[in-house]
Amino acid sequence: MEVIAEGSEVLLYFSKKYKYLVKVTKQKFSTHRGVIDLSQLIGKPFGSTLETDVGEKFVVAKPTFMDYLERFRKVTQVIYPKDAAAIVLFGCIGPGSRVVEAGLGSGALCAVLAYYVRPTGKVYSYEIRREFIEVAVKNLSRVNLLDYVVIKEKDITTGIDEENVDAVVLDMATPWLVVPHAHKALRNGGYFICFSPTINQVEKVVKALKEHNFIDITTFELLLRTYKVEEGSTRPETWMVAHTGYLTVARKP
Amino acid sequence: MEVIAEGSEVLLYFSKKYKYLVKVTKQKFSTHRGVIDLSQLIGKPFGSTLETDVGEKFVVAKPTFMDYLERFRKVTQVIYPKDAAAIVLFGCIGPGSRVVEAGLGSGALCAVLAYYVRPTGKVYSYEIRREFIEVAVKNLSRVNLLDYVVIKEKDITTGIDEENVDAVVLDMATPWLVVPHAHKALRNGGYFICFSPTINQVEKVVKALKEHNFIDITTFELLLRTYKVEEGSTRPETWMVAHTGYLTVARKP
Amino acid sequence: MEVIAEGSEVLLYFSKKYKYLVKVTKQKFSTHRGVIDLSQLIGKPFGSTLETDVGEKFVVAKPTFMDYLERFRKVTQVIYPKDAAAIVLFGCIGPGSRVVEAGLGSGALCAVLAYYVRPTGKVYSYEIRREFIEVAVKNLSRVNLLDYVVIKEKDITTGIDEENVDAVVLDMATPWLVVPHAHKALRNGGYFICFSPTINQVEKVVKALKEHNFIDITTFELLLRTYKVEEGSTRPETWMVAHTGYLTVARKP
Amino acid sequence: MEVIAEGSEVLLYFSKKYKYLVKVTKQKFSTHRGVIDLSQLIGKPFGSTLETDVGEKFVVAKPTFMDYLERFRKVTQVIYPKDAAAIVLFGCIGPGSRVVEAGLGSGALCAVLAYYVRPTGKVYSYEIRREFIEVAVKNLSRVNLLDYVVIKEKDITTGIDEENVDAVVLDMATPWLVVPHAHKALRNGGYFICFSPTINQVEKVVKALKEHNFIDITTFELLLRTYKVEEGSTRPETWMVAHTGYLTVARKP
Repeated sequence: MEVIAEGSEVLLYFSKKYKYLVKVTKQKFSTHRGVIDLSQLIGKPFGSTLETDVGEKFVVAKPTFMDYLERFRKVTQVIYPKDAAAIVLFGCIGPGSRVVEAGLGSGALCAVLAYYVRPTGKVYSYEIRREFIEVAVKNLSRVNLLDYVVIKEKDITTGIDEENVDAVVLDMATPWLVVPHAHKALRNGGYFICFSPTINQVEKVVKALKEHNFIDITTFELLLRTYKVEEGSTRPETWMVAHTGYLTVARKP
Repeated sequence: MEVIAEGSEVLLYFSKKYKYLVKVTKQKFSTHRGVIDLSQLIGKPFGSTLETDVGEKFVVAKPTFMDYLERFRKVTQVIYPKDAAAIVLFGCIGPGSRVVEAGLGSGALCAVLAYYVRPTGKVYSYEIRREFIEVAVKNLSRVNLLDYVVIKEKDITTGIDEENVDAVVLDMATPWLVVPHAHKALRNGGYFICFSPTINQVEKVVKALKEHNFIDITTFELLLRTYKVEEGSTRPETWMVAHTGYLTVARKP
Repeated sequence: MEVIAEGSEVLLYFSKKYKYLVKVTKQKFSTHRGVIDLSQLIGKPFGSTLETDVGEKFVVAKPTFMDYLERFRKVTQVIYPKDAAAIVLFGCIGPGSRVVEAGLGSGALCAVLAYYVRPTGKVYSYEIRREFIEVAVKNLSRVNLLDYVVIKEKDITTGIDEENVDAVVLDMATPWLVVPHAHKALRNGGYFICFSPTINQVEKVVKALKEHNFIDITTFELLLRTYKVEEGSTRPETWMVAHTGYLTVARKP
Repeated sequence: MEVIAEGSEVLLYFSKKYKYLVKVTKQKFSTHRGVIDLSQLIGKPFGSTLETDVGEKFVVAKPTFMDYLERFRKVTQVIYPKDAAAIVLFGCIGPGSRVVEAGLGSGALCAVLAYYVRPTGKVYSYEIRREFIEVAVKNLSRVNLLDYVVIKEKDITTGIDEENVDAVVLDMATPWLVVPHAHKALRNGGYFICFSPTINQVEKVVKALKEHNFIDITTFELLLRTYKVEEGSTRPETWMVAHTGYLTVARKP
């Protein structure tokens, strides 16, 4: 059984809404429900329950990749996991894949891509704003994925340096300007995937994809609806995110 | 530039609806729009266009993992890619993960899991019906993923042999019976994920998860809505799959 | 207790999918499950069960407005009840309302509007194709609503004759061309409502509404998802109509 | 052209979010964007634009039934217009209909029903809490619909006094207890309609409806998704109400 060491990071779980990712030290930590003496965690097993000074209970859990991802410092609108998941699978992006991405933004999508191309693949990420790059580097390094990423301070609408890549993934305002470069950079059978908030962007990018003879062009949106599950009174949650963006997937023949 | 060799498999693409995955031989192949002389493909580059004997045009594309997945022989209802994608990312299943799965069924979800745990992870798949196992083995071997899978002809509701696994993924009728075994088999921070077609199954599994002190229990459904994108007349497709199943994700603290 | 008279119309109900609206005569009627001798219905109460010659059971129900509406002869794509319902309420169309409508088409939306403006209101319906008018007149007369409708064989994009109307309701290809006429025809506080299948039509009509100083301009779509309810195995139906059209509602201040 | 008289009610419209329903007096009225001198409205036509003391522009519109409905004093969760609209049409509730309703609550659904049964129909509304009745009476009288409503301080689960009614409409916690009474009260072909927030309520009411031989039993939910329409950047709104309740419709044969 794994015990908690000083210096390791843990998730203090109160509820789905209140979770804290903290480093175990000999200090105190303030939650929304009282103060926790972190030193009492050292040597305890994961899954232990502990109490704040006002008697509220927290469970200590081992943090996962998703916990870190949710806590990325955000300087841009960050892609939702539902969309990132579809990009990865619908683009057949897996261990060993070489992927070109733009823009890097806060690095959230980049992190997901890097997570899946490990250990032999690589993500080439284009970004023009240096301040975004700085934030993304910190975020990516916190999840130990920087080794799988090549960051390029360059405007992808002026061209892609890589050749024979497995996928080009775009989350940027003008994806249609990248279509000709993507066609050149992709290997046969490689995927073009872009995420666009407005339907007008979709119209433009699909038009460009058709002009460059991409095949299997598909546009869809994913709606994620959560439920409040309680025996005898189960129902969907009242509110949901009704729109993040449209995903367009195509491939070079 | 890569050319097509005799014996290799290609995708003959006519439209999103009509695509054929064929092995290149010196024979003829009948499509819904005339006959193609496959021998003319040998030595041609991918992306070439060819004509059937009645003059209809097909593009020759390099097949991808998704093409094979769509063509799995099906003996059970097979999970949709939208759901498989969420299982993979929401369960943090990636290169190196050790995953327990049940039931194997036709092997489609198993194939996706195996694709992502490569090259160092493993999927342990439980299935009680030998005839399903036989089909799944053929399907998995066609996509070269059998090396990453351990198939067990065993009823998972009687227990899980593995320990310290990263995730337990269930697509079966009575997932609540597996909750105690999953709790024992999972490592700290490991994920329990199940796919259930009815809301009543969800109520039962969530109740069992709460009783076993799982945290971060979330139930959601994913709706995928495709669009007909044409400049000036863009609209969602008229029909959609409105329900596949509910996904419940939880983790052991 | 009401009994069935010869000559009256009844609904022979087998299941949600199989229902027959027939006139009671002394003849026989063939269903998908055998033949019914209609003469045995005469004098029986509604709600009676009867058997076909092969022993299948049907219930005899009194038909409602919706039964007739579903059986309208269709020469055009007909509006769905979910959309018609929203048009009526969001447009505050009720007893006494004077409503301009275009195009008439098969008369289904016109019938719903006429049903609700009774007994003192009126629907003025514009249609340019005489063959549609002929079908619509038959449909409307079958549900006894012709008295509440004034059909005009005229192109509504050239102008609206009526003044001071409570609502203008459009289900046609170019609603933006009607916006200036609607502005003139509507009373203060009157509603403009249009149904458009494509998002591009919506962009054009909203632009025109803004230019003509309409207020409270809202565009939405309604998704109707049906459920398969069975104790212990309840779930949404697998397929649904994912798109009929967008509704745009606005009002003249 | 209609002008604004002293004492009449007007809608001061700033945006979809900011609208004020006020009575025109010689006083001043404070908005979120400055003060309006109401006396300047007298004699002006509807549709006029006026300025607050800080120069913000408002349009003066004639209020509609929906404006009043949105401003009902609420003592309970109030039904959404999308659901009320479907209840009215799917239940064929129109001019002349006699409808039984429970519970009255704040009177919002009652108001919609009364609006549509005018001038010859009637809504019989059951409610056990006197404090709700008092609020509902005020709400209904503000929209001049009290004449079409008979309010009964009575528990509908103990029985329905009316006979031969066209529809029974329920928005209450235990609709299944009313099914036998509804069966007795409805005319042949009459509709039973209930609104239920949880799927478990739906299971119970559908079971009861089957036991009492109702036909055409259908359960569905309506999702309303609004759009942000701007030329060149049209997209759905980010958030939506993902769940209000399930509607179950059935009829007595």
